[in-house]
Amino acid sequence: MNTTDPALLYHQTHAGKLGVVSLNGELTKETLPLAYTPGVANPSREIATNKDLAYDLTLKGRTIAVISDGSAVLGLGNIGPEAALPVMEGKSLLIKQFGGVDSFPLVIDTQDPDEIIAFVRHVAPTFAGINLEDIAAPNCFVIEDALQDLGIPVFHDDQHGTAIVVRAALLNAAKVVGKSYDSLKVVIIGAGAAGLSIAKMLLQSDKNPAENSQEKSMLRVLDLIMVDSKGAIYSGRNDQNEYKNYIAEISNSQKIQGSAEDAIKGADVVIGVSKPGAITVDMVKSMAPNPIVFALANPTPEIMPDQAALAGASVISTGRSDFPNQINNVLAFPGIFRAVVLSRLTVISEEMMIAASDAIAGLVTEPTATNIIPSVFYPGLAEVVATAVASKK
Amino acid sequence: MNTTDPALLYHQTHAGKLGVVSLNGELTKETLPLAYTPGVANPSREIATNKDLAYDLTLKGRTIAVISDGSAVLGLGNIGPEAALPVMEGKSLLIKQFGGVDSFPLVIDTQDPDEIIAFVRHVAPTFAGINLEDIAAPNCFVIEDALQDLGIPVFHDDQHGTAIVVRAALLNAAKVVGKSYDSLKVVIIGAGAAGLSIAKMLLQSDKNPAENSQEKSMLRVLDLIMVDSKGAIYSGRNDQNEYKNYIAEISNSQKIQGSAEDAIKGADVVIGVSKPGAITVDMVKSMAPNPIVFALANPTPEIMPDQAALAGASVISTGRSDFPNQINNVLAFPGIFRAVVLSRLTVISEEMMIAASDAIAGLVTEPTATNIIPSVFYPGLAEVVATAVASKK
Repeated sequence: MNTTDPALLYHQTHAGKLGVVSLNGELTKETLPLAYTPGVANPSREIATNKDLAYDLTLKGRTIAVISDGSAVLGLGNIGPEAALPVMEGKSLLIKQFGGVDSFPLVIDTQDPDEIIAFVRHVAPTFAGINLEDIAAPNCFVIEDALQDLGIPVFHDDQHGTAIVVRAALLNAAKVVGKSYDSLKVVIIGAGAAGLSIAKMLLQSDKNPAENSQEKSMLRVLDLIMVDSKGAIYSGRNDQNEYKNYIAEISNSQKIQGSAEDAIKGADVVIGVSKPGAITVDMVKSMAPNPIVFALANPTPEIMPDQAALAGASVISTGRSDFPNQINNVLAFPGIFRAVVLSRLTVISEEMMIAASDAIAGLVTEPTATNIIPSVFYPGLAEVVATAVASKK
Repeated sequence: MNTTDPALLYHQTHAGKLGVVSLNGELTKETLPLAYTPGVANPSREIATNKDLAYDLTLKGRTIAVISDGSAVLGLGNIGPEAALPVMEGKSLLIKQFGGVDSFPLVIDTQDPDEIIAFVRHVAPTFAGINLEDIAAPNCFVIEDALQDLGIPVFHDDQHGTAIVVRAALLNAAKVVGKSYDSLKVVIIGAGAAGLSIAKMLLQSDKNPAENSQEKSMLRVLDLIMVDSKGAIYSGRNDQNEYKNYIAEISNSQKIQGSAEDAIKGADVVIGVSKPGAITVDMVKSMAPNPIVFALANPTPEIMPDQAALAGASVISTGRSDFPNQINNVLAFPGIFRAVVLSRLTVISEEMMIAASDAIAGLVTEPTATNIIPSVFYPGLAEVVATAVASKK
């Protein structure tokens, strides 16, 4: 190990980043019989008569699990549970610091979706909510869908967290270039978990919107084409999995076929959730006037910001903190889990995610080309997001 | 809820007892990229090349899971996972305070032994060791046995923790009454998890002792009879499960049959791990001179200490903190898990448990009738236990 690397040193000092503490101070001869036998029998008896009291008398009511199988970790791929643990521990830390909500990471040694579903069902009594993390597509969809009846929210942040923040950034980017959001022609390059979820959120395609919800009145993108490694996704293409088929049915109404280069011509927005080089200077040049370029591959974007600017992009966003307009899902998930805990949510609906996205966008009162999204250190950010989410309960 | 109850108030103030904290202080613009992307990719990459580095770079190396299915919680019985959580959270707190080791509780909603085994296997990459807790017999034996190949220790404290402390107390009680430990005639009343484990430890019956270990020279009880609700357990009784049959083969060499009253006549020691009333004044009176009575049912002992004293008991021990000689497994498990973490143990062998027991007994240099076992607040207790355990690695 290169022990001069600051990130390695940061992790080595205490062996990881997250510890546990007593919330009532050190145990004494007086408090030990309250915290453990015999006194602990009292809260146990109360909860045995009414399970909901676990929210008031145990850590369940204020703690979120971050669960990963290590199958799709950052840009590193399928590196397994142990190697995923630094990321999950970091995620728990962010939920704690920015959301004010306790969280604990669990990395598991199976990548079988049925076993992962069983694992989450088994551990659910311990937690107020579950954050699924870095689980590869399509398993992440299967697992999340199967767990929506659990009674506590199960939220795959790689999908929804990114989608919420992309939508917020795009709302403000549209203002910067003087185009109306619902007139934007959008191309998404990359059809993994994040890409599919961004497409669904921009189109607001929740298959089961609440009756009489406000959803139908919400602002949505109408013209969207998604592109995978084989080209544009369209209804009738015969090599698409069920998730791509679903997107095909609700997007690309003109059934445009062909490559990313073909699809992007005349587009107002390109969103890359793919790999370095997936967006070229020529592609940006072929877009409509004042193009918006979100190049979100990490750590190396699909196109570097200076290249995108040279090609004529008016607003540029990446996933990196060292360029303006960082698309960072830390803007969303701490506030969402804050709402889960404070309002005892049982699911996180699309309507709640849209509300989170609107709230994040609203924190930038005067968007500019280099300021379409707030900083993760924006004071009170999580509280604003939590309030917006909880209002849709 | 009776909100004037001090134990309920203790649990209600913060919703439970255990929280999580950042070990490196608050995240800033400078440290966020070290704790999370992009810096966190470095420890992940290192661990991907060498899994063992998870012990140095994540919480794995210093964190113990406390896992329960809520099937046998305290004296409350099968109250389920949510109601078990206060106990498990308390246990994690004790491991932290007394052992200096981080710990997190996981209560699970299955009581199927195969599903529990799968759960523990799946979650193992997150932890340095597993404490199984409050799982009913015989599932607790099945589950613990099946997991000894996991690569991290799996320790059912209700069995072994109690057994370690009972043995320590008995070593000193024998000194108080002037009898040699290996001459003691012992009767155990109750054949649940704790009773079976106490029997195995007193007899030192580990089926697979390490070759050339020091075990054979260790002090052991030779004359022991275990009694369940149907009477004495003996080789050939036809209604015993496999665990009782095992005990039958290694104890009660004279195949004494009959009730607890029959078995106890002339005994030097009775150990109750049963229920209130299971030991009577007449039973104590029928024992050998200077009898030792351990009445460990909680919160109400098999016989109250004043009654046992009136009946002639020379040394009396209970599970309660409001009487002398409390048998409390808090004496053992924090030090054991301290050894697990500091010495990266992969199993906790019987030899290690015997060493822990000897170390605890050794802290009472001059045993008396009311002082056969140290306080849980004995300074440096966990360190002494951990050193003894680690010496048998």
